Amino acid sequence: MGKLTLVSTGAGGDRYLTQEAINVIQEADLIVAYTKYAKDLPELVADKEVFTTPMTKEIERVQYAIDEAKKGRTVALLSNGDANVYAMGSLVVELIDTLDLWESIEYSALPGISSVLALASEVGAPISQDFCLISLSDRLTDAELIQKRLRLALEGDFIISIYNPKSRSRLEPYRGMLEQLKNIDSSRPVVVARDLGRENQMIKIITAKELIDAGVENEEVNMSTTLLIGNSTTKLTSDGRVLTPRGYLNKYDLSGAQKGEWKKIN
Amino acid sequence: MGKLTLVSTGAGGDRYLTQEAINVIQEADLIVAYTKYAKDLPELVADKEVFTTPMTKEIERVQYAIDEAKKGRTVALLSNGDANVYAMGSLVVELIDTLDLWESIEYSALPGISSVLALASEVGAPISQDFCLISLSDRLTDAELIQKRLRLALEGDFIISIYNPKSRSRLEPYRGMLEQLKNIDSSRPVVVARDLGRENQMIKIITAKELIDAGVENEEVNMSTTLLIGNSTTKLTSDGRVLTPRGYLNKYDLSGAQKGEWKKIN
Repeated sequence: MGKLTLVSTGAGGDRYLTQEAINVIQEADLIVAYTKYAKDLPELVADKEVFTTPMTKEIERVQYAIDEAKKGRTVALLSNGDANVYAMGSLVVELIDTLDLWESIEYSALPGISSVLALASEVGAPISQDFCLISLSDRLTDAELIQKRLRLALEGDFIISIYNPKSRSRLEPYRGMLEQLKNIDSSRPVVVARDLGRENQMIKIITAKELIDAGVENEEVNMSTTLLIGNSTTKLTSDGRVLTPRGYLNKYDLSGAQKGEWKKIN
Repeated sequence: MGKLTLVSTGAGGDRYLTQEAINVIQEADLIVAYTKYAKDLPELVADKEVFTTPMTKEIERVQYAIDEAKKGRTVALLSNGDANVYAMGSLVVELIDTLDLWESIEYSALPGISSVLALASEVGAPISQDFCLISLSDRLTDAELIQKRLRLALEGDFIISIYNPKSRSRLEPYRGMLEQLKNIDSSRPVVVARDLGRENQMIKIITAKELIDAGVENEEVNMSTTLLIGNSTTKLTSDGRVLTPRGYLNKYDLSGAQKGEWKKIN
């Protein structure tokens, strides 16, 4: 029986590949990928048959991968970041289910480092409390539901990571988000990250006010950008990193820490 | 200058290690880890100096790692899952900041596969829409805030992943969660996953009703368990996997899919 593995390759480039993802790619006899992502892994896919399609052709890609697996091949379908986070996961599972192919191919998926995790590790420790991920793309989600989720997430003092913030032709959900951010402390730390994991990676730590002031035309925010909005306790360290304390300092007296003495204070 | 790298090792075992995590562990001259997690990586740490402490001694572990890095050593501090997700990240950053050591050691962190991503890839495609992570541990978070976040997340129809659901001595937040789940459709898919990535990994797909009926004494739910609660659109495939459709089927007519014909219907 043919085999289809949906392989999450992690945020940009090859930096975040897991060992098991590398193994599956090496064992595959066909690699199917978005054109740009296949180029991220030149050595891994060098001696492989590679089928690529551009950005919006994801259904063609998935269908080709399924068709070839049906023929008995071992196919690795690559997905950037984590395949389950606003990526290929649901489309693949939905299609195999709709076409009733669970008996015809052996399907599995491997997780990867999604952007929010890559971003967090690069800037300090911003997501150590409860957090949520919200995509601003209204291509497949109702625009009002997106704004409602943003409102509830802010009300719950969640740390919020925003995926797919805006594109040239899709500005309204982002405009709505900026409006809502006017309700929080203007000094709240915000992280703007683009092309995470790639050579041209850009990460900026700014404030809610600066993000709002840059407006919807902000050119640093596009479909390759991930945003992180701190919660009410998120702050900067003396070194300028982003920290959402988990609360250890409320529980322990750290004054003796340098001498190796710890006191639990409640 | 000494070097301290906080290395996320991914959900259980060594299955989810990234290539860069392996590299940093190999280059370190001291490994600091929770006793259980060091045992997960026998080959990688075989010829290394390894300092371990048990579960609740995380502050001692971090302090030792910092102290040794200050002496000029290259230290890898291991953290299970992703270090930023309810793990060591904030404690390390908070301590280095409190002790004013940014100039004394070179600090960085590497992301890892957090449980929710490992779980999702194992059961299908459950988190393809907006989702949030909530820890039920009230050791460092106010118990009322936890229940408020649960309520808002349910109201916003987020997919919800629950970390640290309960321990022997901490049942109240879990009891509160079960109460709140009575407000959603009783057939809503719920995933119960324990020891993800390890040999004894257990994953069960049940319904909200079954989770509620098992009560607070449910022995399958402990500190090694991660839960996933679907949103209102989450369903099971014909194969019994969990799928939260992203909405492609609303946009495309898949009736011609098997013949390679796709029609965009709106």
